[in-house]
Amino acid sequence: MDNPRSDRVRSVAALSKRSVRARTGRFAVEGPQGVREAVRHAPASVRDVYLTAEAMARYAADIVEPARAARLWVHEVTPEVLAAMAETDAPQGVLAVVEAAAPTLEDVLAGGPRILVLLTHVRDPGNAGTVIRGADAAGADAVLVSEASVDVFSPKVVRSTAGSLFHLPVVTGLDVDATLARLRGAGVRTYAADGSGTTLLPDADLSGPHCWVMGNEAWGLDDAVRDTCDEVVRVPIHGLAESLNLAMAATVCLYASAAHR
Amino acid sequence: MDNPRSDRVRSVAALSKRSVRARTGRFAVEGPQGVREAVRHAPASVRDVYLTAEAMARYAADIVEPARAARLWVHEVTPEVLAAMAETDAPQGVLAVVEAAAPTLEDVLAGGPRILVLLTHVRDPGNAGTVIRGADAAGADAVLVSEASVDVFSPKVVRSTAGSLFHLPVVTGLDVDATLARLRGAGVRTYAADGSGTTLLPDADLSGPHCWVMGNEAWGLDDAVRDTCDEVVRVPIHGLAESLNLAMAATVCLYASAAHR
Repeated sequence: MDNPRSDRVRSVAALSKRSVRARTGRFAVEGPQGVREAVRHAPASVRDVYLTAEAMARYAADIVEPARAARLWVHEVTPEVLAAMAETDAPQGVLAVVEAAAPTLEDVLAGGPRILVLLTHVRDPGNAGTVIRGADAAGADAVLVSEASVDVFSPKVVRSTAGSLFHLPVVTGLDVDATLARLRGAGVRTYAADGSGTTLLPDADLSGPHCWVMGNEAWGLDDAVRDTCDEVVRVPIHGLAESLNLAMAATVCLYASAAHR
Repeated sequence: MDNPRSDRVRSVAALSKRSVRARTGRFAVEGPQGVREAVRHAPASVRDVYLTAEAMARYAADIVEPARAARLWVHEVTPEVLAAMAETDAPQGVLAVVEAAAPTLEDVLAGGPRILVLLTHVRDPGNAGTVIRGADAAGADAVLVSEASVDVFSPKVVRSTAGSLFHLPVVTGLDVDATLARLRGAGVRTYAADGSGTTLLPDADLSGPHCWVMGNEAWGLDDAVRDTCDEVVRVPIHGLAESLNLAMAATVCLYASAAHR
């Protein structure tokens, strides 16, 4: 493909818009790391893989061969076409169009999860992506995302997950109150991660199934949400910092959970 | 001040350039959080504080009064002047010009540090700032930064430290080899944080003085640096993620250190 103004190119580029992603149920994965992980761990959701000639050669073993083995559509495109499709500056010659997996909270609960994290109001794409990556690394069973949070299928979030979006279920569009109630009903304790907590993280009982509940980057958790959680847990601050940023706090909490596993 | 093209405004705006910061020994702090922490914790280094009329009112108790009590220069400027001075989009009407503190490694060692972190090759401003914030929160004694790393006095790093730049010593411009040798000479164990490590983080002996040695975001630690460290420690990865990002790995390591303190 060599025409950056073709309908196909336009339709891929349009996936940078949330409304188009919502309508089509598809999103774009930009860059070799994300595409490789999608091809490896979610091949059934991958619609098309686009690479420049240079990237075809560079990622032959990593992406092209596994994609062809999984009978995926692999297309060679010019650098101009790839640039026209991509939102980010540096897709490094690789982009895939993927169907958004749509696991539900019930799917997750059916698996008997031990460690979960719920993002109630995360707005920064980098934070959301980093939490998904940290949850994956810490061995969490799923990430739950409220309807008020950033769209996890936006290019910046996808990129900052570094492929983890394809490693564990990410449930989106959740109502926070209903989710907290359902988690409790399923025997999953809900722990609000909040600087106002009276329980320090090292003292929290992380032996049973539990879900970390994270608030907004700037203003933290809504009071009502915090009050609904079973416990409010604080990451200890030893120096003069007011707080950790959201992704750091989530990662530290999830690693504390992992240590108890 | 109401002329966005005045010499004063130009000289503040020029601090967005690394060469100008190096020549003048000054940098700009943008936004209320950073300026408040500079005024609180490093008033002797603050040269000038600039606020719009609106910010003067909003941050009267937080910034203006403590700044005046410390006999700092506080200037009211128009929104146009503030925008012309600032590099970031949203300084929220507040900016300060601050002299860069220049603590040395010897200053830090004289304090008998227990927990340190050395950034050998960090290039992303957000990562560097987040590590400084995480080090502060975990109660580290100082952050050491090599000459090959991003300039910690750049606006994006300053902003992402969320004020922590003024909470603990940040030593810059270090030669990595000489620093590792000096740390060892001072009885500080050096722990390379690296995915190739054979010691898992929960098994690392963090009881004595030690320094976490962090590599580059993309390619990790140089082999020679890793081999020079006393031990190579790996943050356990429980899921399918390849790694944590640099700032998350540093924060998890530093919190493990804090737990042993």
